[in-house]
Amino acid sequence: VTANPTTAGSISKEVLDRLRAVVGPVGIIEEPNDIAPYCRSWRDDWQGRVPAVLRPLTTREAAQIVSICAETGVAIVPQGGNTGLTGAGQPHDNMSEVIVSTSRMKRIRDIDVVNDTMTVDAGVVLKDIQTAADKVDRLFPLSLGAEGSCQIGGNISTNAGGIQVLRYGNTRNLVLGLEVVLADGRIWEGLRSLSKDNTGYDMKQLFIGGEGTLGLITAATLRLFPKPTASETAWIALDSPQASVALLGHMRQQMGDAVSAFELLSRAVIDLLLAGVPGHEDPMREVHPWYVLMNVTSQGAAGSLHVPLSEALAKALDVGLLQDAQIAASGAQAAKLWRMRECLSEAQLAAGGSIAHDISVPVSRIAEFLQRADRALATAYPGIRLCAFGHVGDGNMHYNPVRPLDWDWPRYKIERPTINRIVHDIVSELGGSISAEHGIGRSRLAELVRYKRPVELEMMRTIKRSLDPKGIMNPGKLVSV
Amino acid sequence: VTANPTTAGSISKEVLDRLRAVVGPVGIIEEPNDIAPYCRSWRDDWQGRVPAVLRPLTTREAAQIVSICAETGVAIVPQGGNTGLTGAGQPHDNMSEVIVSTSRMKRIRDIDVVNDTMTVDAGVVLKDIQTAADKVDRLFPLSLGAEGSCQIGGNISTNAGGIQVLRYGNTRNLVLGLEVVLADGRIWEGLRSLSKDNTGYDMKQLFIGGEGTLGLITAATLRLFPKPTASETAWIALDSPQASVALLGHMRQQMGDAVSAFELLSRAVIDLLLAGVPGHEDPMREVHPWYVLMNVTSQGAAGSLHVPLSEALAKALDVGLLQDAQIAASGAQAAKLWRMRECLSEAQLAAGGSIAHDISVPVSRIAEFLQRADRALATAYPGIRLCAFGHVGDGNMHYNPVRPLDWDWPRYKIERPTINRIVHDIVSELGGSISAEHGIGRSRLAELVRYKRPVELEMMRTIKRSLDPKGIMNPGKLVSV
Repeated sequence: VTANPTTAGSISKEVLDRLRAVVGPVGIIEEPNDIAPYCRSWRDDWQGRVPAVLRPLTTREAAQIVSICAETGVAIVPQGGNTGLTGAGQPHDNMSEVIVSTSRMKRIRDIDVVNDTMTVDAGVVLKDIQTAADKVDRLFPLSLGAEGSCQIGGNISTNAGGIQVLRYGNTRNLVLGLEVVLADGRIWEGLRSLSKDNTGYDMKQLFIGGEGTLGLITAATLRLFPKPTASETAWIALDSPQASVALLGHMRQQMGDAVSAFELLSRAVIDLLLAGVPGHEDPMREVHPWYVLMNVTSQGAAGSLHVPLSEALAKALDVGLLQDAQIAASGAQAAKLWRMRECLSEAQLAAGGSIAHDISVPVSRIAEFLQRADRALATAYPGIRLCAFGHVGDGNMHYNPVRPLDWDWPRYKIERPTINRIVHDIVSELGGSISAEHGIGRSRLAELVRYKRPVELEMMRTIKRSLDPKGIMNPGKLVSV
Repeated sequence: VTANPTTAGSISKEVLDRLRAVVGPVGIIEEPNDIAPYCRSWRDDWQGRVPAVLRPLTTREAAQIVSICAETGVAIVPQGGNTGLTGAGQPHDNMSEVIVSTSRMKRIRDIDVVNDTMTVDAGVVLKDIQTAADKVDRLFPLSLGAEGSCQIGGNISTNAGGIQVLRYGNTRNLVLGLEVVLADGRIWEGLRSLSKDNTGYDMKQLFIGGEGTLGLITAATLRLFPKPTASETAWIALDSPQASVALLGHMRQQMGDAVSAFELLSRAVIDLLLAGVPGHEDPMREVHPWYVLMNVTSQGAAGSLHVPLSEALAKALDVGLLQDAQIAASGAQAAKLWRMRECLSEAQLAAGGSIAHDISVPVSRIAEFLQRADRALATAYPGIRLCAFGHVGDGNMHYNPVRPLDWDWPRYKIERPTINRIVHDIVSELGGSISAEHGIGRSRLAELVRYKRPVELEMMRTIKRSLDPKGIMNPGKLVSV
């Protein structure tokens, strides 16, 4: 039995009866109107159809579901908060799959403040994990736009990034152990809470970033950190992206790991924001071509970073690394600056829609990437509105050109593959990645074949075939078998 | 063709001729006397016999060697600096394998100081990498006793730990990309230098800590860090292991990531050192049951950590977390303290030999582990000399009881399996690992079957069979197929 969502028929009544018996009436959704929201991505760019959404309450129920699906060849689309950007969480269109949602698996199982770890069900919302950590005077540093609704299982399955990767690493770096239902329904109890464990292949690494294609993550043990007690936010004006890279080096040299977030924004992005989203204002009187929004944190006394930060910025000004800088005078002012960063998706929508690229290159090639991509797009599409921002310390730019003012969205949207090709060819030549943090899902699957070396694609297929021989786990996502 | 080192016969002259033709006369060692050092572990606890040691100069040569071995079913033992502790780098005894040594692959291929990365051949000695980083004003933080002779390929294959894991993570955290010759001789060019790349399964994670059982690592791209400019070392007396855990929490709360090393040592260990190794002296006049050797570093001005460290230690003294503390007055004095830590293996040898355990437990369970293991061993072996030290921030203790004074080594050595069982059963009950940083190799292979859950063992076998179907890569190590 091999699942194939592009050709398979619908799922038999007998199978649905068996699945319903596992979770009971509260654990299954079968009304098409109630199913619909689970089948659509929030950007409305992916949708599909399934006969049922299963919402197990326990790992045991989840394992029984996967067992039945494995036995009967029914494909599973694992889903967390449904906030992904690549179509990895949406089903195909032919009623051949079931969605298994972790949304009822919401227990915080354990917090160990001495070991600095927390063990949680896969369905716990990221914000709730942050809050639970905060209550015991710890930090769980994963932070991203969707944190109010995304679930940790989904964060792990996409190896989510966000704004604090520079200081704390990707989600991969925050996971010590996993509990996973494997593709045959067995449960792997891998919830270790150890910093060091060299007893064999580190199997959890395959499920982290595996987009649900190898198994269903049901729980995780996460690392916690001391909660910073001092924090300062600065808004910095620069004349070029090169300057931001040099400034980052300077700041890390001066303040080390205190530099916890370092976001680059182009003036064009600020203009889109000010024009399209109410409630924001330009933090500086003069206009500059580039900005950095930076956060520094430490374990020192509140306010103790103000002087070191001022001095480091003054030195940077002296040597021409920056044009102007402001340190937020209050927490409210800092929050206002960060809200600008968070509203950039809205700004692009308001401007008429953008074509998104979530790329990374070596930090030393960021300036070259922007220069080449800007030039290529401006030549191919006169009037295109360039829009670049991102995590410069990770080499990760969200490069989302907005349609020319005199084009409508349908006309622009048709150009997506061509624009992707222009941008991603440059990324590839610079040794970069076509998906730095959002993953592959369905949206980058065809491109992966172009940019990934055949040897590596074949290794990925080998892994997929060996851990999910029947191909029932999220087929047609991440890797084409 | 499937390699089986326990039954296979010797390697044919034709195959040796083909292998010799790849590397030329300078790249092959066939004289038994010259081969012998490659077949012995440095602790002399593992040895074997091979007809040849192959020393490729390039990745291409390495790939040709693996191709020939795959075709003819000859097993390969990959070897770096031959400093491992588990028998992973030594061949079996029946002339059925060849050693492939990376010792001629010594190029530093590239250093990118803006991206903070370095790309090196697998055979570069760790110390040479540290030095090369230092020359460009960067830190490569991996640091361990064997750093003068171990090679980075071996460090990666064992996911080496060392004394700075607390601050910088394991080797796994320091590797951005790998170049690997796969088990069929194909080359995987995975030398990415990106902090973020979510384009599929993170394949490098299987080779990191894979002990050469899935492929031969030929090069790696490594992360560099800003070089600390301020550093202080403290020698701290404590009354219990519990106090060390509490002190670590206090220090991280006070000084955050400045805490870069935090080593716990029992008084018994210090006694063995002072009695058995010349050139050391007790740093304190009074005797205390436990000590911590701590390092703090930052990007601040030289000396700038002295006051914050003094204040943090004074606070700890006030609340009873420590009994006494000294901050090293000079770099020389700090080096002298760290030399004590480095000479502990010698001290155990001088005391007549120990039975080593490289275990980890959740940090919150360290005190309980020590209490239970000490009691069990003292009961079973009256007169046994308990000897515990290690990386308390990682939950990783080297727990190496020394033979009773009236026992000789042969008598004590016979007890190894029983002592291992006593210690590791306790570790397992506390949710710990029987190999925190040294790996499995051959020395822990049988025990792994006792302590690893069957589902995970089966996953490991599945991975081994899928990436090395002929079983030629370091058979009989890490995983029993």
